[in-house]
Amino acid sequence: MSTQDDSAALNERHRVRMERKKAIIDAKIAAADKQIGIIIVNTGNGKGKSSSGFGMAIRALGHGMKVGVVQFIKGAMATGEEQFLRRFPDEVSFHAMGEGYTWETQDRERDIVKAGEAWQQAKRFLSDPAIGMVVLDELNIALKYRYIDIETVIADLLERPAMQHVVITGRGAPAELIEIADTVTEMNVVKHAFKAGIGAQAGTEW
Amino acid sequence: MSTQDDSAALNERHRVRMERKKAIIDAKIAAADKQIGIIIVNTGNGKGKSSSGFGMAIRALGHGMKVGVVQFIKGAMATGEEQFLRRFPDEVSFHAMGEGYTWETQDRERDIVKAGEAWQQAKRFLSDPAIGMVVLDELNIALKYRYIDIETVIADLLERPAMQHVVITGRGAPAELIEIADTVTEMNVVKHAFKAGIGAQAGTEW
Repeated sequence: MSTQDDSAALNERHRVRMERKKAIIDAKIAAADKQIGIIIVNTGNGKGKSSSGFGMAIRALGHGMKVGVVQFIKGAMATGEEQFLRRFPDEVSFHAMGEGYTWETQDRERDIVKAGEAWQQAKRFLSDPAIGMVVLDELNIALKYRYIDIETVIADLLERPAMQHVVITGRGAPAELIEIADTVTEMNVVKHAFKAGIGAQAGTEW
Repeated sequence: MSTQDDSAALNERHRVRMERKKAIIDAKIAAADKQIGIIIVNTGNGKGKSSSGFGMAIRALGHGMKVGVVQFIKGAMATGEEQFLRRFPDEVSFHAMGEGYTWETQDRERDIVKAGEAWQQAKRFLSDPAIGMVVLDELNIALKYRYIDIETVIADLLERPAMQHVVITGRGAPAELIEIADTVTEMNVVKHAFKAGIGAQAGTEW
């Protein structure tokens, strides 16, 4: 068989395979036609949990939705996402706990007060049908340290407007949260620049 | 012991644990002081690969960097991230292949031409030191189908400006790419709304 025949055969196999794939995917899409606000959880030890939440925020903004963001735990350092999203005060409401990571403060009582205040802000977003997406960044950390009661969080999440999407990030998502979530992704480390002696850098880590 | 004593003991244990954690993390941060452009790969079958790339793009924008985006494979449908990022033409250069997913076209020859054109655009970004971050969305799919030569991709990546970050997304990242990457994350599905009959929705999937 000539090279040209090989190539034609390859193209034809590709066409048939893709046609079959298209039929399967089209059928799945036709079957999955529910439109409803979903809860997305990004957990695991790898990178991309928070950045994926902010990527979904700009997706929502691109579709004309309003977005509410609460950053739990993080906040001592102004992050790139905060600096950028604060440029759009009519579209994005941004609340940062503003106390750094919990190992920076070493003060459990103060962390609990701050986390409670942050949850009150989250609850305001979760009660507002004008907000199409709520990003609760690093909420899992606040839950892990029991700064916020998981039962309260779940009750407030389930009472939110029907079409509102929620993205929750942070390692160690509790089982109760995974149970009520619609989409859960675990980000796992395959390789990390930090281990090779490369510091946390503007744009990639914060 | 009274409840108050219990609580004081808990707070003290927390303080000691967090102090130890802070010392470890501070030491790691001090050791990891290299500042250099890194290659980040988001792969796996779970959600969050592309959205994390776009989240990092806004982080970079927040720090005043310019960003170049090339979307491989995707593109028939205007996505939220595209609609949003096109609002900032001075800060973000956006190139979408514009041919839909490969199983939509079923035409391998055309896909190869389009992917080659997209790579030429990527190469322009990878040659421009004014661009602080390049997002190569779904490049892994184009590599998987051998629409673009992996050797060319690696050579162009390694020749880029020293301080430029690159984020590459898509399932099935090739081993050669993982080898040269600095940070690699595998996004794994724990649960997916699609399986529960919920369709792809604006803001969360596109």
